Amino acid sequence: MDIQEILKKLTLEEKAYLCSGADPWHTVSPKSFSIPQVTVSDGPHGLRRETDVPGQSEPATCFPNGSALGASWDTALLSELGAALGEECRSQGVSVLLGPAVNIKRSPLCGRNFEYYSEDPCLAGSLAAAYINGVQKEGVGTSLKHFAANNKETGRLTTDTIVDERTLREIYLSAFEYAVKNARPWTIMCAYNRLNGTYCSENKYLLTDILRSEWGFDGLVMSDWGAVSDRDKGIEAGLDLEMPGGCSIGPQKIIRAVKNGNLSEAALDKCVTRVLKLAEKAAAQKGTADKLDSKVMFEQHHALARKIAEHCMVLLKNEAVLPLKKSGHLAVIGEFAKTQRYQGGGSSHIHPTKLDVPLDEIQKAAPELSVSFSAGYSLSDDQPNTALIAEAAKAAAEADTAVIFAGLPDSYESEGFDRSHMRMPKSHIALIEAVARAQKKTVVVLSNGSPIEMPWADRVPAILESYLCGQATGGAQAAILFGDVNPSGKLAETFPRQLSDNPSYLNFPTSSPDLVQYQEGVFVGYRYYEKKQLAPLFPFGHGLSYTTFSYLAIETDHTEMQEDNTLTVRVTVKNTGSRAGREIVQLYVSDAESSVVRPVKELRDFCSIELKPDEERTVVFTLSKRAFAYYDTAMHGWTVEDGVFNILVGGSSVNTPLCASVTVHPAVPKPLSFTRHTLTAAVWDEPAARVILQKFLAKSGFTGLEAQADWMRDMPLRNLFMFGAKYTQEEFDCFIMELNRAVAP
Amino acid sequence: MDIQEILKKLTLEEKAYLCSGADPWHTVSPKSFSIPQVTVSDGPHGLRRETDVPGQSEPATCFPNGSALGASWDTALLSELGAALGEECRSQGVSVLLGPAVNIKRSPLCGRNFEYYSEDPCLAGSLAAAYINGVQKEGVGTSLKHFAANNKETGRLTTDTIVDERTLREIYLSAFEYAVKNARPWTIMCAYNRLNGTYCSENKYLLTDILRSEWGFDGLVMSDWGAVSDRDKGIEAGLDLEMPGGCSIGPQKIIRAVKNGNLSEAALDKCVTRVLKLAEKAAAQKGTADKLDSKVMFEQHHALARKIAEHCMVLLKNEAVLPLKKSGHLAVIGEFAKTQRYQGGGSSHIHPTKLDVPLDEIQKAAPELSVSFSAGYSLSDDQPNTALIAEAAKAAAEADTAVIFAGLPDSYESEGFDRSHMRMPKSHIALIEAVARAQKKTVVVLSNGSPIEMPWADRVPAILESYLCGQATGGAQAAILFGDVNPSGKLAETFPRQLSDNPSYLNFPTSSPDLVQYQEGVFVGYRYYEKKQLAPLFPFGHGLSYTTFSYLAIETDHTEMQEDNTLTVRVTVKNTGSRAGREIVQLYVSDAESSVVRPVKELRDFCSIELKPDEERTVVFTLSKRAFAYYDTAMHGWTVEDGVFNILVGGSSVNTPLCASVTVHPAVPKPLSFTRHTLTAAVWDEPAARVILQKFLAKSGFTGLEAQADWMRDMPLRNLFMFGAKYTQEEFDCFIMELNRAVAP
Repeated sequence: MDIQEILKKLTLEEKAYLCSGADPWHTVSPKSFSIPQVTVSDGPHGLRRETDVPGQSEPATCFPNGSALGASWDTALLSELGAALGEECRSQGVSVLLGPAVNIKRSPLCGRNFEYYSEDPCLAGSLAAAYINGVQKEGVGTSLKHFAANNKETGRLTTDTIVDERTLREIYLSAFEYAVKNARPWTIMCAYNRLNGTYCSENKYLLTDILRSEWGFDGLVMSDWGAVSDRDKGIEAGLDLEMPGGCSIGPQKIIRAVKNGNLSEAALDKCVTRVLKLAEKAAAQKGTADKLDSKVMFEQHHALARKIAEHCMVLLKNEAVLPLKKSGHLAVIGEFAKTQRYQGGGSSHIHPTKLDVPLDEIQKAAPELSVSFSAGYSLSDDQPNTALIAEAAKAAAEADTAVIFAGLPDSYESEGFDRSHMRMPKSHIALIEAVARAQKKTVVVLSNGSPIEMPWADRVPAILESYLCGQATGGAQAAILFGDVNPSGKLAETFPRQLSDNPSYLNFPTSSPDLVQYQEGVFVGYRYYEKKQLAPLFPFGHGLSYTTFSYLAIETDHTEMQEDNTLTVRVTVKNTGSRAGREIVQLYVSDAESSVVRPVKELRDFCSIELKPDEERTVVFTLSKRAFAYYDTAMHGWTVEDGVFNILVGGSSVNTPLCASVTVHPAVPKPLSFTRHTLTAAVWDEPAARVILQKFLAKSGFTGLEAQADWMRDMPLRNLFMFGAKYTQEEFDCFIMELNRAVAP
Repeated sequence: MDIQEILKKLTLEEKAYLCSGADPWHTVSPKSFSIPQVTVSDGPHGLRRETDVPGQSEPATCFPNGSALGASWDTALLSELGAALGEECRSQGVSVLLGPAVNIKRSPLCGRNFEYYSEDPCLAGSLAAAYINGVQKEGVGTSLKHFAANNKETGRLTTDTIVDERTLREIYLSAFEYAVKNARPWTIMCAYNRLNGTYCSENKYLLTDILRSEWGFDGLVMSDWGAVSDRDKGIEAGLDLEMPGGCSIGPQKIIRAVKNGNLSEAALDKCVTRVLKLAEKAAAQKGTADKLDSKVMFEQHHALARKIAEHCMVLLKNEAVLPLKKSGHLAVIGEFAKTQRYQGGGSSHIHPTKLDVPLDEIQKAAPELSVSFSAGYSLSDDQPNTALIAEAAKAAAEADTAVIFAGLPDSYESEGFDRSHMRMPKSHIALIEAVARAQKKTVVVLSNGSPIEMPWADRVPAILESYLCGQATGGAQAAILFGDVNPSGKLAETFPRQLSDNPSYLNFPTSSPDLVQYQEGVFVGYRYYEKKQLAPLFPFGHGLSYTTFSYLAIETDHTEMQEDNTLTVRVTVKNTGSRAGREIVQLYVSDAESSVVRPVKELRDFCSIELKPDEERTVVFTLSKRAFAYYDTAMHGWTVEDGVFNILVGGSSVNTPLCASVTVHPAVPKPLSFTRHTLTAAVWDEPAARVILQKFLAKSGFTGLEAQADWMRDMPLRNLFMFGAKYTQEEFDCFIMELNRAVAP
């Protein structure tokens, strides 16, 4: 396919129409040019390939959802997942899978949080890169989404997200940046919302200046489904493909704008070229696709879904109740044990190939165990059902242990709307409270896509967070409950005690109609709770195991370094318990002193390791400039301030037993410069400048500097006259010039 | 004095020099025109008239400082104070007193908080207006300061304060606005800082557009001492007078700018006119000044200072310990009982005419009482002194009751720097803890200009906050401790449990060098703690009494009103205890539902009433539009949203037993208008518009609206094509026009 040749032959009209889809799931394929059609399909945690029947999709493996995957902290696993998704795409002739989704969890209320990984961009970006690499090595493209600052569902198609430059860079763009640079996704999907006044679909700053010029992205940008406002402005900004297709208004606007001279055909050509390149890439890969036996594949993928789920679930609390014995009496309680909630609603909703039922899996895992079941609540009613609760409490009292399956029903969270609170249904809460009264050894197993308030948390000895863990949820839950699998997930997001503790609470979903201000700035998630000294219910990075890990040693190859060097950090961890287990080693960096407000510490790397009992292993991290930097809005770039940084390593954000320090020096020291607004203190404290100041003051008849130093130190140079100095404007200007000359490099 | 005539004769040079002072405390008085000189002097809670000896000032009455006055909630008292200050000014030939200071307490750390009244603009503005009226009726001018958004001391001369328009209007300008409109101060003093990029001293938006054009201010604007950056820009902006004088750079800049054509002489003439008008006013009033016997005046003013102090102190906690008996043994502990801290440092520091010593006043008030004294700590050392503490604990154990005088030493808070924490000296904390262990009946009396953390609060049964209550502090403390005076102050600011709970914590003193972002927005003080459901140590409006008050009834004259009407609220309060007492009746308004994020409730009026035992009284409040409005940044004006407002009345922000509701209708209902970004739901829900939508969809071949309503409702009209509607741009534009026509008024 000679793109340059095709481009020459295409009419303006054909070009314009190439930049919108043909229908909801395909690009345009003008027959005369034999440009192959590209098929795209919803993801991200499974393939939603629509059938001809409205609202139905082909069977596909439903893997753990984004929140759950985030809790795995396991990049290798995400690559494996990606490869499996790639296979399913190939088997269905899909060239681009619409995922991964890496939007930051600004509020626990965002309806689409279950699709997203984390409140932390380092974790989200790393997982996304692994996922992309996994899918794309199968010859299937991805669409990293939703670019950018799309962190709520309410009014998502029109809201203007107001976020300052530093926060945008440090929090909301970082995960995209990492994934683009480290995994080169075929495509990126721009978000619905406006960003600082301009629709993302028309945002040149975002789609061209940052994404292409700065990060080097060379793929295609498509719109989220319906994100286009002015198609011609989108072309100018770098939005290559409008989706869905089927409406002539977009192409017609492009044609008119080019004819009017409001849009250059060169800009259009750029977009067309990228559409053609995608078509070429998709066609080339399709040729290499082997025939897959979908029955075998689905069996394998179900097993993989189970393995991943086992890595995602987070043991939040365990006071010597888990793992459960496989004998005696167990009361299984809660309708979720039969009718599991394992995925979220909306465009990511998968038609699963099979489904593990928790109750069955429990019995399968422990055939000797006497298992009773009580529904406890009705799925169709939020209000407590006294009879069901009484029955459950009775069953719990008569058993040795009770396991309650609870969480959030489908109606509570989905793409398309945000939650207005963090509560579980009253029926679930009442059930937990009643059962906990009847049976001390009560375990709560949660299924939910995002954090909930747990006013009952102190009253039960164990809580397992299983998120929305896909079609093999039930098997994974059973394996963890009985200890056949040692739980190893860690929270990728903070669980606050109450909704109002969340940093976005004052500005969510909107600050005023169709406007949301991210006034908490960079203080999102644990960055906020730590800075505000506000204890969460369960902190970021938290997750228990049936074994114990000891952090033995930390070692760095430098105690001092230039910012353009790298720092190697070696951390030794030992399994000090009696079971094999997986630990997530988390590395945080803390700036000891900073001229800008910074979080207490920030996650900069992590590593998932498996350790047998008594085994110890040394993990090696490499940190470079970015690990120490903040985004400097004056310079519009990443800056490291000269000084000491602490490197904190441990198994949770609130438990970092290892600490090492390094002094980092910027490559180019900040140049000194003085103006009339410079405080006298800054001049006084710089020996070369102080001489000039003293000379100037002596000349202007002033002698009392030392005596008045304190008050004077806080005065800008322009106010020296207040201390008795007499001078003209010219003498003063000359003085400032001399000061700068004295400190020039 | 014929100002127009003088203006004609003045040379450009003379005009330019008239717009700066002659020296630190006087305006220029060119002899040839017999323009009288105006003398100004520091306030605000006393007259600081400098003598010829550097750093010394004439004796003057030191009244309670701003924080204390704020806690009085007593406008009548503030007027009395103003009149007394006016008298002292007249006796010293001072024409303008530099006060009051109404900056909002954004952070408890601001070093100058002791000069300011409150975290709430309604309270601060009302007190300031009363103060101004009091001073000015004596023929002395005031200078309302520091205009505006000067809420910290760190880098105060150069920092750029970034605050959004709504927050600026609702929180940081409101107190100024109220005082300007209700008390017409002779002058206003512009603040040091930059506001959203422009120095206040050059800020036309602030000094002319808002202050003069909008609020109708007709007085003079002077600079804070050293606030001028570019004098010529200041003239253009409406800064009439540069202070202090004595530097030719400012006038020279003006001359050059006029000559260059960069500044119109008309702008300069406006400023000169206002300087001349002030001189004229000051001279006219001076003529009427009677001769005052300063000895008699100072005696009277000391008594007034005592009376005011008695109204300012806040009884924070009292578990049946206070009032004290006048017999038996009392251990008085703490060096502050002898060496009282009664005022803050900086430009407001007064040379007092006399000074009550708490220890002496206690003995005087209770001659029968056996009083011991132990220093407990040394003023010169923050570290606990074991010997002094042991001695104090012993004295406490041997007495019937202990009273500890503690708080913040001078070095902890002052104009010129901010605190970096909210802690008391370790020596004070250790003393309180040791004494509380030795003596159950321990009372802590605090002297401090702003809130402190009280980790010991649960361990003592009584706490009296006496702030910095001026030269009669000791007498007032004794009177309250023994019940000769019933305490009646209420907190004008929240005392948080810990510093990090404060809303400005993430952005104080700066966000980055020389920049502070007010990211908490309108959520300052109780507006934040209430919205975040974060319990403070002591809430806004809190203060105990030795009697009890019952809120009997609330009655409004409407349940429904137009915004341009007024609402009369009648509240009946009864003294249900056995002592006479004063109650601060606080009225808050809460918007039941709003399209913009609003505080839970906001103080809109208050009233101080004295009630004998069993006496009841009905207080009448009148609320107008502003009580229900928020500042609408789209309209750049105050807006009331149609709907229900709750009026909450009580004796503290956390105790409002009375509630009434009123439905307020805006004068002009918000016009409906539709664009292609309007969500389909908004059209669907408006009957007249729905008809047009249905017609449009039918015409474009779409039939399934009802079926897809949920997803479609959240889509903007521009995306109707996604649901199968087919139309051209022209048809669509026509549809939008028809929609608007259908709902046009």
